[in-house]
Amino acid sequence: MSPAADRPADRPTDSPDSPAGRPVDLARLVTVMRETGPLVHCLTNSVVRQITADVLLAAGAAPAMVDHPDEASDFAAIASGVLINVGNPTAEQVEGMHAAIASARAAGTPWVLDPVAVGGLVLRTGLATDWLEAGPAAIRANASETIALAGTGAGGRGVDSTEDVLAAESAARDLSARSGAVVAVTGPRDLVVTQRPGHLGEAAPPTRTTWVESGHPLLQKVIGTGCALGALTAAYLGAARSAGIADHDAVVAAHAHAGAAGTVAARTAAGPGSFAVAWLDALYTLTPEEIAGLVTVSEA
Amino acid sequence: MSPAADRPADRPTDSPDSPAGRPVDLARLVTVMRETGPLVHCLTNSVVRQITADVLLAAGAAPAMVDHPDEASDFAAIASGVLINVGNPTAEQVEGMHAAIASARAAGTPWVLDPVAVGGLVLRTGLATDWLEAGPAAIRANASETIALAGTGAGGRGVDSTEDVLAAESAARDLSARSGAVVAVTGPRDLVVTQRPGHLGEAAPPTRTTWVESGHPLLQKVIGTGCALGALTAAYLGAARSAGIADHDAVVAAHAHAGAAGTVAARTAAGPGSFAVAWLDALYTLTPEEIAGLVTVSEA
Amino acid sequence: MSPAADRPADRPTDSPDSPAGRPVDLARLVTVMRETGPLVHCLTNSVVRQITADVLLAAGAAPAMVDHPDEASDFAAIASGVLINVGNPTAEQVEGMHAAIASARAAGTPWVLDPVAVGGLVLRTGLATDWLEAGPAAIRANASETIALAGTGAGGRGVDSTEDVLAAESAARDLSARSGAVVAVTGPRDLVVTQRPGHLGEAAPPTRTTWVESGHPLLQKVIGTGCALGALTAAYLGAARSAGIADHDAVVAAHAHAGAAGTVAARTAAGPGSFAVAWLDALYTLTPEEIAGLVTVSEA
Repeated sequence: MSPAADRPADRPTDSPDSPAGRPVDLARLVTVMRETGPLVHCLTNSVVRQITADVLLAAGAAPAMVDHPDEASDFAAIASGVLINVGNPTAEQVEGMHAAIASARAAGTPWVLDPVAVGGLVLRTGLATDWLEAGPAAIRANASETIALAGTGAGGRGVDSTEDVLAAESAARDLSARSGAVVAVTGPRDLVVTQRPGHLGEAAPPTRTTWVESGHPLLQKVIGTGCALGALTAAYLGAARSAGIADHDAVVAAHAHAGAAGTVAARTAAGPGSFAVAWLDALYTLTPEEIAGLVTVSEA
Repeated sequence: MSPAADRPADRPTDSPDSPAGRPVDLARLVTVMRETGPLVHCLTNSVVRQITADVLLAAGAAPAMVDHPDEASDFAAIASGVLINVGNPTAEQVEGMHAAIASARAAGTPWVLDPVAVGGLVLRTGLATDWLEAGPAAIRANASETIALAGTGAGGRGVDSTEDVLAAESAARDLSARSGAVVAVTGPRDLVVTQRPGHLGEAAPPTRTTWVESGHPLLQKVIGTGCALGALTAAYLGAARSAGIADHDAVVAAHAHAGAAGTVAARTAAGPGSFAVAWLDALYTLTPEEIAGLVTVSEA
Repeated sequence: MSPAADRPADRPTDSPDSPAGRPVDLARLVTVMRETGPLVHCLTNSVVRQITADVLLAAGAAPAMVDHPDEASDFAAIASGVLINVGNPTAEQVEGMHAAIASARAAGTPWVLDPVAVGGLVLRTGLATDWLEAGPAAIRANASETIALAGTGAGGRGVDSTEDVLAAESAARDLSARSGAVVAVTGPRDLVVTQRPGHLGEAAPPTRTTWVESGHPLLQKVIGTGCALGALTAAYLGAARSAGIADHDAVVAAHAHAGAAGTVAARTAAGPGSFAVAWLDALYTLTPEEIAGLVTVSEA
């Protein structure tokens, strides 16, 4: 029996149980991502475009921001991954997002939904809710946004999370089952959940829950660290798929890479300004093995 | 007699004479702002959104950029303060600004007008002039912009100030009387003016003029330090109002916080790059007492 | 005979042979640029506006981003130089670009075209191609973009260059002859080409080819270093024209200034975060003589 029989062709590579029982091989994922240099098409908010691009470059990926509706479709088709971040959208950008999602879907390109401040604001809440049906590979959010998007809470007061990650676990599970996406809830500890919908008469659906411990509180004092993590998630998804690695593992690795760099940056930072600089340095300089050694990953 | 009797309900908290004869208690204001963590709704130009958000986070406030006309009204109603910065507006953002101003006004949320490059450019000059009638709590500008907005000069050549602060004092006074706002003119020394309009037969109207000495010339070599100060002014106004402190004092404190951090940053900076980093660090790390000790505030 | 007779009024100051046989006087150009403090009107992509403005300020110029169609025309008329960067355009900004180009042309203001990611994307490729006829003073691009814009290649995969500079030399020459612009191809070595179209029966057309060796690979790991160089090119063009120096020399000097700062920044950088900071510092602190000493300029 060939090893490939472990993952039949009709089982998608992002099945949560594909690496059943095996821990995420962080070092391999970082290596694969850097060797691939995935091109990430970011449709993101105007506050964080620079730091998002800088994070992708430092980590080993290639950023491109292409928002115009006449260009977004073509570009999403050639990108390795796509990020849709609904923070501070413009009407024209929303058209570009629709085009990019449709194109990514048609091309089989993984795309990440970042539902920034969903819950409190009507336009973006409607968009993000609709896009749950459009096959995101991953959703990256804070606890408040996760709860709001799952429809079980009232949302936060913007980009702050007023809920803690544990309180969002059940919402994350619902959201994953409903959308088919890996759901990552970013916080002091990050939660990554994949939940397949069960069917009547079936055994319990395959489920995977991973906790990632890393990072530093100063990450909350620099704008765009979470948004950039959404883009990095798209980078890891693109690279992982090209290597036949599960989406769940890719999402975990993105959080580990960003978090490990945060841990290292905090050692020398005198405040949020020098922290941001050291974070970019560490995203670039940390070896795959160093990243794996700086993060505690546990499967629940 | 309760202490509250010192400030009757029918006297607005932003009356320039409410703390008459008392110097601004900078340390208290910084403490109040950081304890409040005011949510600042920024409608600002696309060049400075990242640094504006980073400054608010570092100083102790919470930023949110919400420009879409369908969202700006709802968000301004829940924010602690709103910034309207007319640098590089888009047509859609201008709609959002109109909505945010109306909503802030209805909710009693203090909003700050930053008339970037007003005078030389037709669209923004018209907008800023109209908005003088919409009850800004504060106007923050350089000397050229102050003179141009007051209608007594021809404006500068963009964001540079070609006039010095002293030359703008009378324009600032006019602008304050006309708009009801505290007017801050940023420069080597910052001027904060509150001038109430006089009425026939009245004694001289209550007036307050405060000079703030702090900062460093390198602040002029980093984009967005002035624009971010406008946002910080909105943060201080929101926090001060919730504590019953006068708007004038809040505006002074914002300038003191930004200026003190500039003074400290210049001690280690090797140029504008490292200055910007150290400025963010200092905005975060300086204690209220350190800020008060780094700044000379004088009432004229 | 007056010295002015060396450059008759009917010979444009940007003639490639005006300083024939003389090497570019880098130190003088840097001095002239800093003394002039040229106001650069940037219509650029939303990812790099902050770093572009910071680079101009650090280098000694004054930035202004004015995109609105109602303001772009007026502003381009008073600016010293204009940058048109087609990365991530919006429909409204494209209108502003049309207005700014027309105004710059009418006013004789030099403008720079940066054809970001042209080749792969339909909208911007059409715009950049049309604007070749609108008299840009310079075109700054990477090798892939140069080849794509010249119509001899299929374009890159975004902002990456998948071609090397030498491969783009003949495309750069064609592009210069066709547009009348100085063409700069940025890469590990920068190529600056001016090629005048020849006419039947004429001797070989005047041509100038300059190679600039400087910089550091980390410049590729910070977003916007190339885009900001486009803006710096506009700054040097504006200053050089006011001093009667050829456009070709101004383009070389912009690349030398940015590259020398990169070389110096790399000496202390621990990664792309600290590199970007040190680059801004060096753009500001390097003396004209230091810049000249850090760069190798050779005429081919």
